[in-house]
Amino acid sequence: MRKIRIGLIGFGTVGSGVVKILKKKRLFLKRKSGIEIILKRVCDIDFRRRRGISLNRSIITKDYRDVIKDPDIDIVIELVGGIHPAKEIIMGALSNGKDVVTANKALLAEEGSSIFELAARAKREVYFEASVGAGIPIIKSIRESLIANKFNTIYGIVNGTSNFILSKMSSDYCTFAEALREARRRGFAEKRPRLDIEGIDSAHKLLLLVRLAFGKILKLNNIFVEGIRSIELSDVKYAAEMNLEIKLLAIAKKIKDELEVRVHPTLISKEHMLASVDGIFNAIYVDTDTAGELLFYGQGAGSVPSSSSVVSDIMDLAKRRLGAGQNQVIFLKDNSIKRLRKMDEIFSRYYIRFMAIDRPGVLSRISACLGKHNISIASVSQKERKRARVVPIVMITHEAKERSMHNALEEIYRLAVIRERPVAIRMEEL
Amino acid sequence: MRKIRIGLIGFGTVGSGVVKILKKKRLFLKRKSGIEIILKRVCDIDFRRRRGISLNRSIITKDYRDVIKDPDIDIVIELVGGIHPAKEIIMGALSNGKDVVTANKALLAEEGSSIFELAARAKREVYFEASVGAGIPIIKSIRESLIANKFNTIYGIVNGTSNFILSKMSSDYCTFAEALREARRRGFAEKRPRLDIEGIDSAHKLLLLVRLAFGKILKLNNIFVEGIRSIELSDVKYAAEMNLEIKLLAIAKKIKDELEVRVHPTLISKEHMLASVDGIFNAIYVDTDTAGELLFYGQGAGSVPSSSSVVSDIMDLAKRRLGAGQNQVIFLKDNSIKRLRKMDEIFSRYYIRFMAIDRPGVLSRISACLGKHNISIASVSQKERKRARVVPIVMITHEAKERSMHNALEEIYRLAVIRERPVAIRMEEL
Repeated sequence: MRKIRIGLIGFGTVGSGVVKILKKKRLFLKRKSGIEIILKRVCDIDFRRRRGISLNRSIITKDYRDVIKDPDIDIVIELVGGIHPAKEIIMGALSNGKDVVTANKALLAEEGSSIFELAARAKREVYFEASVGAGIPIIKSIRESLIANKFNTIYGIVNGTSNFILSKMSSDYCTFAEALREARRRGFAEKRPRLDIEGIDSAHKLLLLVRLAFGKILKLNNIFVEGIRSIELSDVKYAAEMNLEIKLLAIAKKIKDELEVRVHPTLISKEHMLASVDGIFNAIYVDTDTAGELLFYGQGAGSVPSSSSVVSDIMDLAKRRLGAGQNQVIFLKDNSIKRLRKMDEIFSRYYIRFMAIDRPGVLSRISACLGKHNISIASVSQKERKRARVVPIVMITHEAKERSMHNALEEIYRLAVIRERPVAIRMEEL
Repeated sequence: MRKIRIGLIGFGTVGSGVVKILKKKRLFLKRKSGIEIILKRVCDIDFRRRRGISLNRSIITKDYRDVIKDPDIDIVIELVGGIHPAKEIIMGALSNGKDVVTANKALLAEEGSSIFELAARAKREVYFEASVGAGIPIIKSIRESLIANKFNTIYGIVNGTSNFILSKMSSDYCTFAEALREARRRGFAEKRPRLDIEGIDSAHKLLLLVRLAFGKILKLNNIFVEGIRSIELSDVKYAAEMNLEIKLLAIAKKIKDELEVRVHPTLISKEHMLASVDGIFNAIYVDTDTAGELLFYGQGAGSVPSSSSVVSDIMDLAKRRLGAGQNQVIFLKDNSIKRLRKMDEIFSRYYIRFMAIDRPGVLSRISACLGKHNISIASVSQKERKRARVVPIVMITHEAKERSMHNALEEIYRLAVIRERPVAIRMEEL
């Protein structure tokens, strides 16, 4: 078994999420990749706070140098956040020949050049999937899957706090202050949410996307950034009347030989998929010369989704360090699945339509038959067809077993008042 | 410069798209990856048809064995489609030590096991990003980015033809036959669209997704498949009245220890993002234990988007063959970008709101001022506020320059009838 040793610095929300996954899914990851990930050191300045996870005393330290200088450690995970000492940690780790995984968008946006230059000199990698869109694999998609693409446009909803506030104002017609209060109450906004609601966090993420997609290295003060603090409820309402929605968009657009890069509240059509991105969700829409329009949507924050991306970065770097041959497509069986459910056994709500002779008592005969098969009706409507003896009856059922529905419809079809084979369409509640 | 030699078999729609990209973007890909891709052979049974691309006579052949037996070739691209001789091509290529890229969902869904087993024995890879969702990076996302995830649910709109027909019926209230005719006219449906409209193509793709996400190997006859042929316009209409949309969904759902796998027309809420997937677009929604809900959206068919995925597979395999060290994050500068456009210089439509004293002539003074700055108004509405002397006036402008807008608003703010700083929100037409 090939092994990779990692050291994690910053045992906070995301850090503890990563440790939990690495522990819980150790075997799962090993079977999928052929690699064993060993958590050699965990560093934080405070280990007293409860994280719902126990660490062996021997691996914890309060000094990050114990991690970045440990010759056994292959990959350093920086989840401290902020500029210092995060920068020193990453630069130190690279200098010592370690690959680095980080979720630190502020640092990469502001100090990315010196970090990536050092990484190139040291022939090491800095991976940062969790830095934009938490669990959404946007970084790798741009870097690898879209390698043959030139980008025209990026539109991102990349700050969950702002999007929660704007969605709330739009759905509940509440004020900015009320929406912010609710965001705080639900843990979606920090006490001092300046970076979020003033657009700085979105701008940091946009700078990373622009660097990846256009190879353009910009600083925060190169671009226009406007947050959502001054959005008034009246504007949200007037926009809605015009079928428009206000979103905080991170925008990068190539127009001829110029690039526009900006973050600001933006009115978009309610018909566009970006307008449907609600609450703390994030989405990144890109338009390229080859793949065309693409949209990536998912939870944009949170310990668990971010951990998904951090662990994916760890596994990619582990494969890279151990050399090729480890990328074999492995179809790992989910052992918790015992059997394939037969179609007859599934449960679903159904839309059903009968073409029946317009005569008293028809509805009661149909519903009696459905009832006999344990199918209960959620709604019925009899559609009028002028000058027709045969009228459509449309029903939505509660959850019913496919077999029961099948049998009931066969029986109903045999009723003298029914004129066509009944139509049934399954429903899914997403 | 490190080199990889490839042979392409099947010079049809996708094949010629791939060759075009490899030619047009040879340098671009080389600079991004450090690898030169050399197209050594191209095989097809017919080279007379025009593809808008010229090939050197010396590289073309009508015998696929010339490709799979060529000892110089590293990677074979199979774009023939169908079961035979595609299977012989892939098996032969793997036996001869080549990696394989294919877009052949039917073959992988039906004969995947023998192919993947041979690949594992030969320690070679079969990559197939273009087989599901064309340019959408769903395969790699499931395999690599979501490596730490266990899957609960997959809902896919994975057949562009069916989705075009259903969207058309829903937006234009036309019949299935009319929508199919339109799909054919626009090249979105083949002459014999059986595989598409009967759900077989969706089922093939679903089988691949299920194999990847759940490690479950199923055959077409293990799962329930129902196409869209019997969807009637009346049902589309009745569904719309209930705020529901009919989509052909490929569904895989884990419920306790059972897995449901099925393809059928499905009613979903118009509010869900999947309901907004219109025309030939595809989307795959997944719900996992770690990253949570994710949605991947993009063009699901077509020569160019598929080529994006085929080339990405080629580059990944090339890196893998040449060993590590080639995955360095390269921020390749888009040289066609000459400058960053200043915020003052951008053009946008604007939503603007003025709080003005309710007095005759106010509107004409505002619009005169906008006109002076070359800003033309697309719509105006004066919102009534009962018992108020100050009323909001809301306008949407045509495209205007940011600087002009800024200057105009400053000027308008100084008018005696204006009582608050005017509000301006930029619009984007996506």
